[in-house]
Amino acid sequence: MSASEVIFDHGRAERIGLDEAVFCEGKSAAQIATILDEVSARGTSLLLTRLDADKFHQLPPEHGAALDFCALSRTAYFGPLRPVRVEGRIVIVAAGTSDAAVAREAARTLRHAGIDASMVVDVGVAGIWRLMARIDEIRRFPIVIAVAGMDAAIASVLGGLVQGTVICVPTSVGYGAAESGRTALNAMLSSCAPGLLTCNIDSGYGAACAAIRILNSFA
Amino acid sequence: MSASEVIFDHGRAERIGLDEAVFCEGKSAAQIATILDEVSARGTSLLLTRLDADKFHQLPPEHGAALDFCALSRTAYFGPLRPVRVEGRIVIVAAGTSDAAVAREAARTLRHAGIDASMVVDVGVAGIWRLMARIDEIRRFPIVIAVAGMDAAIASVLGGLVQGTVICVPTSVGYGAAESGRTALNAMLSSCAPGLLTCNIDSGYGAACAAIRILNSFA
Amino acid sequence: MSASEVIFDHGRAERIGLDEAVFCEGKSAAQIATILDEVSARGTSLLLTRLDADKFHQLPPEHGAALDFCALSRTAYFGPLRPVRVEGRIVIVAAGTSDAAVAREAARTLRHAGIDASMVVDVGVAGIWRLMARIDEIRRFPIVIAVAGMDAAIASVLGGLVQGTVICVPTSVGYGAAESGRTALNAMLSSCAPGLLTCNIDSGYGAACAAIRILNSFA
Amino acid sequence: MSASEVIFDHGRAERIGLDEAVFCEGKSAAQIATILDEVSARGTSLLLTRLDADKFHQLPPEHGAALDFCALSRTAYFGPLRPVRVEGRIVIVAAGTSDAAVAREAARTLRHAGIDASMVVDVGVAGIWRLMARIDEIRRFPIVIAVAGMDAAIASVLGGLVQGTVICVPTSVGYGAAESGRTALNAMLSSCAPGLLTCNIDSGYGAACAAIRILNSFA
Amino acid sequence: MSASEVIFDHGRAERIGLDEAVFCEGKSAAQIATILDEVSARGTSLLLTRLDADKFHQLPPEHGAALDFCALSRTAYFGPLRPVRVEGRIVIVAAGTSDAAVAREAARTLRHAGIDASMVVDVGVAGIWRLMARIDEIRRFPIVIAVAGMDAAIASVLGGLVQGTVICVPTSVGYGAAESGRTALNAMLSSCAPGLLTCNIDSGYGAACAAIRILNSFA
Amino acid sequence: MSASEVIFDHGRAERIGLDEAVFCEGKSAAQIATILDEVSARGTSLLLTRLDADKFHQLPPEHGAALDFCALSRTAYFGPLRPVRVEGRIVIVAAGTSDAAVAREAARTLRHAGIDASMVVDVGVAGIWRLMARIDEIRRFPIVIAVAGMDAAIASVLGGLVQGTVICVPTSVGYGAAESGRTALNAMLSSCAPGLLTCNIDSGYGAACAAIRILNSFA
Amino acid sequence: MSASEVIFDHGRAERIGLDEAVFCEGKSAAQIATILDEVSARGTSLLLTRLDADKFHQLPPEHGAALDFCALSRTAYFGPLRPVRVEGRIVIVAAGTSDAAVAREAARTLRHAGIDASMVVDVGVAGIWRLMARIDEIRRFPIVIAVAGMDAAIASVLGGLVQGTVICVPTSVGYGAAESGRTALNAMLSSCAPGLLTCNIDSGYGAACAAIRILNSFA
Amino acid sequence: MSASEVIFDHGRAERIGLDEAVFCEGKSAAQIATILDEVSARGTSLLLTRLDADKFHQLPPEHGAALDFCALSRTAYFGPLRPVRVEGRIVIVAAGTSDAAVAREAARTLRHAGIDASMVVDVGVAGIWRLMARIDEIRRFPIVIAVAGMDAAIASVLGGLVQGTVICVPTSVGYGAAESGRTALNAMLSSCAPGLLTCNIDSGYGAACAAIRILNSFA
Repeated sequence: MSASEVIFDHGRAERIGLDEAVFCEGKSAAQIATILDEVSARGTSLLLTRLDADKFHQLPPEHGAALDFCALSRTAYFGPLRPVRVEGRIVIVAAGTSDAAVAREAARTLRHAGIDASMVVDVGVAGIWRLMARIDEIRRFPIVIAVAGMDAAIASVLGGLVQGTVICVPTSVGYGAAESGRTALNAMLSSCAPGLLTCNIDSGYGAACAAIRILNSFA
Repeated sequence: MSASEVIFDHGRAERIGLDEAVFCEGKSAAQIATILDEVSARGTSLLLTRLDADKFHQLPPEHGAALDFCALSRTAYFGPLRPVRVEGRIVIVAAGTSDAAVAREAARTLRHAGIDASMVVDVGVAGIWRLMARIDEIRRFPIVIAVAGMDAAIASVLGGLVQGTVICVPTSVGYGAAESGRTALNAMLSSCAPGLLTCNIDSGYGAACAAIRILNSFA
Repeated sequence: MSASEVIFDHGRAERIGLDEAVFCEGKSAAQIATILDEVSARGTSLLLTRLDADKFHQLPPEHGAALDFCALSRTAYFGPLRPVRVEGRIVIVAAGTSDAAVAREAARTLRHAGIDASMVVDVGVAGIWRLMARIDEIRRFPIVIAVAGMDAAIASVLGGLVQGTVICVPTSVGYGAAESGRTALNAMLSSCAPGLLTCNIDSGYGAACAAIRILNSFA
Repeated sequence: MSASEVIFDHGRAERIGLDEAVFCEGKSAAQIATILDEVSARGTSLLLTRLDADKFHQLPPEHGAALDFCALSRTAYFGPLRPVRVEGRIVIVAAGTSDAAVAREAARTLRHAGIDASMVVDVGVAGIWRLMARIDEIRRFPIVIAVAGMDAAIASVLGGLVQGTVICVPTSVGYGAAESGRTALNAMLSSCAPGLLTCNIDSGYGAACAAIRILNSFA
Repeated sequence: MSASEVIFDHGRAERIGLDEAVFCEGKSAAQIATILDEVSARGTSLLLTRLDADKFHQLPPEHGAALDFCALSRTAYFGPLRPVRVEGRIVIVAAGTSDAAVAREAARTLRHAGIDASMVVDVGVAGIWRLMARIDEIRRFPIVIAVAGMDAAIASVLGGLVQGTVICVPTSVGYGAAESGRTALNAMLSSCAPGLLTCNIDSGYGAACAAIRILNSFA
Repeated sequence: MSASEVIFDHGRAERIGLDEAVFCEGKSAAQIATILDEVSARGTSLLLTRLDADKFHQLPPEHGAALDFCALSRTAYFGPLRPVRVEGRIVIVAAGTSDAAVAREAARTLRHAGIDASMVVDVGVAGIWRLMARIDEIRRFPIVIAVAGMDAAIASVLGGLVQGTVICVPTSVGYGAAESGRTALNAMLSSCAPGLLTCNIDSGYGAACAAIRILNSFA
Repeated sequence: MSASEVIFDHGRAERIGLDEAVFCEGKSAAQIATILDEVSARGTSLLLTRLDADKFHQLPPEHGAALDFCALSRTAYFGPLRPVRVEGRIVIVAAGTSDAAVAREAARTLRHAGIDASMVVDVGVAGIWRLMARIDEIRRFPIVIAVAGMDAAIASVLGGLVQGTVICVPTSVGYGAAESGRTALNAMLSSCAPGLLTCNIDSGYGAACAAIRILNSFA
Repeated sequence: MSASEVIFDHGRAERIGLDEAVFCEGKSAAQIATILDEVSARGTSLLLTRLDADKFHQLPPEHGAALDFCALSRTAYFGPLRPVRVEGRIVIVAAGTSDAAVAREAARTLRHAGIDASMVVDVGVAGIWRLMARIDEIRRFPIVIAVAGMDAAIASVLGGLVQGTVICVPTSVGYGAAESGRTALNAMLSSCAPGLLTCNIDSGYGAACAAIRILNSFA
């Protein structure tokens, strides 16, 4: 199937307030290049997710040069970035260094939508003083995106300390009983803190979209 | 352990904006009665969840009479109900008749917090005209709580049609491959619609608490 | 074991109405070449499935040249293709771009059997207007093959809108809670729409064979 | 929620060719009685599934008397049964005695739709001569519904012997590694015979609906 | 098999330092009575675990009267209790009220071995101030037994705050994604705090035995 | 750890009648070379299993030349092969071509022990006439090793047709619902034919050892 | 379905050397009574398995009196028992007291076939001296049936100590991580001792049938 | 995210008695180099775990030379090693040769903390005489770390023979039903020997940290 068969959902922004994005996993560099040609012809911009460095380097040079690429989060911006329109509403809290890739995917998805998010990293509960040292800062944000793998215990601790919305993103960090993120996911879903909300494993993009939905409705 | 050993988290409402509630599953009628005595002595009110009809009828008559009990949702209010303070912000959409118990748990948890939610039931996507007939009404709410078991397909359809926040509650309705709600949960987490948020299986209570967090921050 | 030990089930077409096909996963290029030699000697034709591009390029040049190979669906035709004998009976509906490979496997298996299928792609329910725009066209076919990964919600929507037979093919598209297609499979099996039928994950070939069985009996 | 809140999908028969049915598991006798009152007022008929004997006996006497109840399959007919309109098109093959309940659910769902199905029971492959003795009879039907638990091996054997459509229904018969029907389901989905189609575990009702879809389109 | 066929491992106390105990689940009241007769004849004492109240009441009156029974933990002492020989070495920390049964099983197993354990209950991390208020007390014990269900987040928080040995006991408290204790177990095993040790789900008995092994070697 | 730390269980042949073998997966070529040096110094022979072609080619040339290597089954003989001492007692039946690697591992393990096994391949039940054409031959052997993946239906058919011992080996052949051999394993364990015995997935070696145990005791 | 529809496989004894038996789980007392009437009319005898005490007591008095019933193993003999024809070939080793029910099912199935098996109970490896005290006795039998739940470690220990055939029966004894026998099953299948053979969970009947197959062929 | 964003938990040694370590899986060679620069600047030492040989060779030469690297255990020491301060308290028992990598990770983590552990390898229970020959030596240690994959039977045997603390480490050694270490983990958790303690799969590091906690408290 040629990429030209792709039916873009161009009306999505109007309908649900979220820009169309391209999930690059499972698509060839050639398919992505064709998509970028189309977007370029329309004169719009685009967010690419799950674009790993190897595939990025296989893109035609003119596309590669046009992309604002982040290897850690495997995201890229195509076309001009809109100005920041929202600040101070969202903080992304990542439990460990290894969770930073997913946290960055969330941050860059938000930035593409014109939202600047704060970031607090390496505050896992195994050294809870690190989290406590920054909890007053975190509590000032109405939306907290909590990113954690393994036991995901930080989600429950945050849920008991902040009033705002807590959007949890389990990550596939860990091994053995971490079960590729399934344990973190289940722990967040069955948290002892009430009212947490959960996204798919490693889905920084999904958490960002959920936060945009909330801001679109209320802010 | 006597129930008097229970340490109530009385400051919770101030800290995270959610009232303390009692999850009755796994507690005996005697334990629940002791808790009600304490709450009564303090002169506060309380929400009880997962209180099945059998256990309700085993409570001492004075407690039974003091409870506003709903058998379908297995919830009860103890003490005076606060007046409605928020209206028109939340709609609960339930796919099938069998999902109504969970939807009702969400509605009654919200009502206990002073929030009146609208309810749209029996609009599963197998007869999508039923959902389409009410979609304009649903779209007017900034928060949609989607309750569904089995394939949970309604969550994705809603996610593509509404701008607001979509809080998904998978239910354990179904058999065989429905896997006690696990299939609905996974389908909601891996929805093709971006930005959905998910709670634990059958957790109408959790969805309501999440909605209260959002309203507390923004509304 | 040499490929010559393979016992072809040459009478299969007479017995169950389905041509023998070769599943290439787990077979070496050398084994496949030997099979093609045998088929060539018999003067018959053959469908090859799960033949990835690397293995295709390892085949001896004379075999490579004799194959009508499709990289997207990893299928190949060996020998002359029979003319189209059935049209207008089957439509293949694929939820997303990433499901196209499996949809194409189904289409090419059908074409090998002389059946021309229509194809409707990129109509996932997250943008349900795309499906609704083509539903009247889809309803005209007595057999609908629905191909979808992740939440597979399109299967239930179709099941509630069409009278004909709905053959569901879950795909392994997605990540995390999509569980390599297991979530799509379970969602299709526990659909709220009655009378859906399901094949193995990613089995476009199996769906096509099932459709051929129906046409063989009735059409 | 009162049963009167149930929104019947009365147009379903016209839209997808299948009558509305009531799945009684999880509904109280009182709720079912209310539904029957409504159906009675409309003057239509109804199929009830998963109605166990205890619940049947809790129904008001007038409803109990009006039902044509089958304890083995836990199904009941309410209202006059339509005459048989199709014969000789469907055979239901059940591997073991314990699979008979599910087979009977399929047969009675078909009969409610005016279709008379033949039944072949106790032909599990552990004594394959029993199946072989009846295979010529089975092969004459264009649709075979194969009902089996445990290893579900009969589905593959049938799939290699009959030309027609094979609709598989895994059952929860068995213990330990049978995993409540999951093993039978997976074995049917990954059968070595091509083109089998599978329903949810224990879903005789689903298999019957699928067969009706095929007959509606072709016969 | 008559209970008299049971071969007691009377030398166990000498060999591994742990008294023989009887796990009553799956044994009839008659079998337990026979065991008590034997123990009585030998003049020794015995710990019984998983003895639910119903079965306790079915025991012959003379045995029932001789038992020191605790309904919450389903444990009983038969024969004279040895004096306390160790104090101040073990603290049992239980996250929620519902975890108290398992915590009590651990405490009573320890007490049967002559060890007095302290107990800290209802300090789940959703209200982390409750844990922090008692952390200095907890840190004074060389062995901490952490009992928690659902997300089991308290184990990681403790692991980062105490120097001593942390023995984790996951409980089956919770529903849905808690997966009967499997989520708590996996979260404890994949904790972000290093050096935690884990027992089987609900095994307060096992945690106590492990603590006794440590004390036997070092204290 | 150097390979010289390996403690060979040289007395195993005397104790349980099975020669020591080396499982090469997870061992480096260097470790295997050291083992062969030791065995060579002792003047004994050895069976190597799970030795893939890449690792075989990395062995020092003198060891490579000394091995009788079979790429399909990933087995090798080191040292002189003992003469055949048993014939006509064991037949290996493999359902499909892809199962041949595992069947061959069983055959070569038996041959290393001096047992010549017959082989019947490509007799899957999807074309049951292929099995029936050879069933009289198969029935003459007191031990049948049945090798099959996917649905493993052949095990049940054989179990109902032969009097002898049936040792089942599930294989990881298949995809999706075949679950890497778990479905075949479960189907064999829950077969409708009584008295089947099962080995680990892909363990042709294990099946051969089991057969040797039987022959050692009885033949 | 009336029980008279059951097709007995009367030729089974001739074909595969195993008597027909009736698995009573899922059959009503009435259905079992009808089967016994038929068997009585034919003048043959029958083994009944999984007949629990409640159902046994619901049978008509004449049938109850005619049965040799064992409550522990839930088995019953109907009709005269054939004399013992084989002795000294099979020993059943059960790890714990709780495994005795499954061990007894195996023993009584063997006895029904005229085979007298020895029994060694309560020799779990946690007190390995108990097993070692009897290992010389156990080694004298050519067939060992090892029955164990939980960790099933006894199977591996036996496998390394005896030359004969080891037939493993995992039991559902245990809780939590024992996973209803799945852990014991997997441990037996992946034993470090070579050549073990495994039956379904709790299937003492299956192990006995497998042993009969071996004896039929060789002894 | 640059590695400089990593927040080291430098106070950890004081707080919980365990040195900070770096888990290298998922970190790039560049990130690890930056961490080493920081540690070097502070003048402290560091343990690195899960550092595979490829990544080690990608480090800048000056870092590579400064590391004491062990390829088998994938661990490295950076900076001067502290002198041995504890001897004769811990023995590591590994069931098979393939478990040696995990055993070595435990030993080297202990050595980094100044603890010298003894090692007993290749004493799997399939040849139980190997374990028995060394059991008196093993029993002299107050802490036994038992490392085993597959069936993990050695843990139960040790648990019944030694008085001391038994810390179990399941390994991912094995295939098929070994389920990547999950079977060993579950077998250790549901051991028939009382009072065993378990770590995550392949976590030699975790077992060592647990042992250090015990020694810190008592020795």
